[in-house]
Amino acid sequence: MIGADAAGMSAASQARRLRGPDELEIVAFERGRFTSFSACGIPYWVSGDVEERDRLIARTPEEHRARDIDLRLRTEVTEIDAAAGRVRTRDVDSGTESWTSYDKLVIATGARPVRPDRPGFDAPGVHGVQTLDDGEALLDSLTRVRGRRAVVVGAGYIGVEMAEALLKRGYEVTVVNRGKEPMSTLDPDMGRLVHRAMEEMGITMVDDAEVTKVLTGEGDASPLGEGWVRAVATEDAEYPADVVVLGIGVRPETTLARAAGLPLGAHGGLLTDRAMRVRGHENIWAGGDCVEVLDLVSGQQRHIPLGTHANKHGQVIGTNVGGGCATFPGVVGTAVSKVCDLEIGRTGLREKDARRVGLRFETVVVESTSRAGYYPGASPMTVKMLAERRTGRLLGVQIVGREGAAKRVDIAAVALTAGLTVDQMTVLDLGYAPPFSPVWDPVLVAARKAVTKVRGSAP
Amino acid sequence: MIGADAAGMSAASQARRLRGPDELEIVAFERGRFTSFSACGIPYWVSGDVEERDRLIARTPEEHRARDIDLRLRTEVTEIDAAAGRVRTRDVDSGTESWTSYDKLVIATGARPVRPDRPGFDAPGVHGVQTLDDGEALLDSLTRVRGRRAVVVGAGYIGVEMAEALLKRGYEVTVVNRGKEPMSTLDPDMGRLVHRAMEEMGITMVDDAEVTKVLTGEGDASPLGEGWVRAVATEDAEYPADVVVLGIGVRPETTLARAAGLPLGAHGGLLTDRAMRVRGHENIWAGGDCVEVLDLVSGQQRHIPLGTHANKHGQVIGTNVGGGCATFPGVVGTAVSKVCDLEIGRTGLREKDARRVGLRFETVVVESTSRAGYYPGASPMTVKMLAERRTGRLLGVQIVGREGAAKRVDIAAVALTAGLTVDQMTVLDLGYAPPFSPVWDPVLVAARKAVTKVRGSAP
Repeated sequence: MIGADAAGMSAASQARRLRGPDELEIVAFERGRFTSFSACGIPYWVSGDVEERDRLIARTPEEHRARDIDLRLRTEVTEIDAAAGRVRTRDVDSGTESWTSYDKLVIATGARPVRPDRPGFDAPGVHGVQTLDDGEALLDSLTRVRGRRAVVVGAGYIGVEMAEALLKRGYEVTVVNRGKEPMSTLDPDMGRLVHRAMEEMGITMVDDAEVTKVLTGEGDASPLGEGWVRAVATEDAEYPADVVVLGIGVRPETTLARAAGLPLGAHGGLLTDRAMRVRGHENIWAGGDCVEVLDLVSGQQRHIPLGTHANKHGQVIGTNVGGGCATFPGVVGTAVSKVCDLEIGRTGLREKDARRVGLRFETVVVESTSRAGYYPGASPMTVKMLAERRTGRLLGVQIVGREGAAKRVDIAAVALTAGLTVDQMTVLDLGYAPPFSPVWDPVLVAARKAVTKVRGSAP
Repeated sequence: MIGADAAGMSAASQARRLRGPDELEIVAFERGRFTSFSACGIPYWVSGDVEERDRLIARTPEEHRARDIDLRLRTEVTEIDAAAGRVRTRDVDSGTESWTSYDKLVIATGARPVRPDRPGFDAPGVHGVQTLDDGEALLDSLTRVRGRRAVVVGAGYIGVEMAEALLKRGYEVTVVNRGKEPMSTLDPDMGRLVHRAMEEMGITMVDDAEVTKVLTGEGDASPLGEGWVRAVATEDAEYPADVVVLGIGVRPETTLARAAGLPLGAHGGLLTDRAMRVRGHENIWAGGDCVEVLDLVSGQQRHIPLGTHANKHGQVIGTNVGGGCATFPGVVGTAVSKVCDLEIGRTGLREKDARRVGLRFETVVVESTSRAGYYPGASPMTVKMLAERRTGRLLGVQIVGREGAAKRVDIAAVALTAGLTVDQMTVLDLGYAPPFSPVWDPVLVAARKAVTKVRGSAP
């Protein structure tokens, strides 16, 4: 295993479940200090919702070793020699190199954060939030800085979650985002709802703005040390910052794979078959943030770095490496997030995704509520639905609301997987009781409206 | 339209949407005083969560009339003359009878509560909760009685919801239930979890006990008047009660239909085709609590009186009556409920349902959490899953937990509708973020375990 996080160690654990140590020797190389941690939990550790780092570690190195997995931390794989079936490793601390041969190789090298090659992005006080070390460094800066102004660069999942975290810690938060609206995984009309809600929370939202540089300060005015971050600059303006968090996405970490001549897709991720086997390589598997996945709705390859996929990949790989048979057919693009009490869910295609693959579609947007309108706590919920024009096939759903909004996309995620039409969706037997839903679930309300639109006019 | 509640008035509204008053005359007969009210909301009105009765009325008579629906309240249909295409009506107040002819008839007569033919069930202080009048009468009793002891007879949805309502109003609540456990729509092992949770809330749970009579008092000891309820008696014990609420289910109200020779099923409900047209009658439709529905999982007819189905039936009937084309294919048996912070969801077949139709199946029960384990508020959730033995087809899911438990059955409801296997479910792309789910959603955890069991042993 190259990489001992979600995909790698899920694979190792599952393979071990199927094959004992006498049958299968498992060696896992990890250049960092941690295993199996929840990167998705970092914003909640920073916010203080999660009290300590180790709560984010699902399985410690000791736990893995107790299950006869030969885990080698701080050991970087520097080369894959696929022809000879071996990898070269380097001890990060001593620099010692050596070769280890394999019968089966699992690549789970994850993703690396995008860091623009522009001035100041490496200044003290500028932080990524991909690893536990990143989280610790950020918390350290937050403890030390005197000011209370934070700028978050990027308004995707990490960006909006970090905005919440910093708000909770009492910072004045500005989110600078190059998209027209936050959450570019939503259509702009739905992103607009997120923009408005975040502004209402007291977050300053700057859209359509590219950060051109990070401005730094000299001298001992900041406890962060020489060259400390002072502001974030766009073409038009400067935003003072005592601390900066980067949430501008990640790219598949496939440097090793590329050097070894393994097949990569248009997004730079490894290409695998449904068994998560690297295409053309009988004994190499890959999973997690370093691979591309098939989008079952569009039929296109995509890069979707999410822990939930990584865990499933690991499970599938571990089963196959262990001699079983499992497949990962693909994704429908489901993702959920929240900013304070605002919930965001999406699955399937946005308008621009549907256009890109040449689909003709209708869109509807409906307003409904999370509970029966008369039940206390019923909160507004906006559901957008896309359906293919001629067939009525569901193409995508986006939901923005409060309690109960995000996970409602699961209904649509299953419907997309099953290829249901919006007509079929209108009669879905979903759970109804006043504390949980209006008598027509918001997703059904959207489906009903979509049916009418797909048919051109009411019959 | 016979009956002006969910099914009838949904049908009327939808038909009116499609056909103007010049094209279609719509007459609706309703023997009661209200239209389109949420019976499911009554427990929350009784509890005080919903402040006033009229909040439960989705559409008033005036609103219906404003849409050119000729609504006749307090007018009971006493006979359907299908051969002549006419109905006989009686003005409830004056007793005047008359005939009205129709081109198309919609039967939406609902259900009537089961009232055991045993002593005392009609005593002052014994209340059903099917109609707004029932709710008002109960609230009136609650205002007047001096004691604080309430007995709920029955532990289905209405029973457990009324237990919560009475608890919230400060009563000592005893639930007397003839099933082995509360919530007989769950398997007994899952019902047991509800039993325990309700006891922890301070509710006295008496299972496996048939109420043989309601004991009444004489004289003016109760403000409820002569013959006031004093206790509920089973074979073994007496439970003192200042007020009694009946939640022992309903039967289809098909007296008229039976007399008219319309086809009824084994559960006493009207039988329709997918267009909700009464079988063998081109111009008669029926929907809501008075019909039987097809269970898509078992292939059997069932009677499932739920507002959500009634609304869908009405929508389908209204479309068809209006000259369009819509179908209601059936249900998968989804239902959700809550008792204080305990949430209950179920869909598909229980063990005994699966056995009854001769299916061979495996069951799994898993414990998981509502959120990532490290995220504040993560609460335990028990998921039971049934899968067909050879094929792995999903047969049913039951969930008992706290926040986020009930509506999670929607995932399974869609999967059941689409006929997914548990293998297919393990790779469903469900929404994941720490505040909403562990990285493996509880439903997926159950599916994984079910796959292993269906396969006999891990590969």
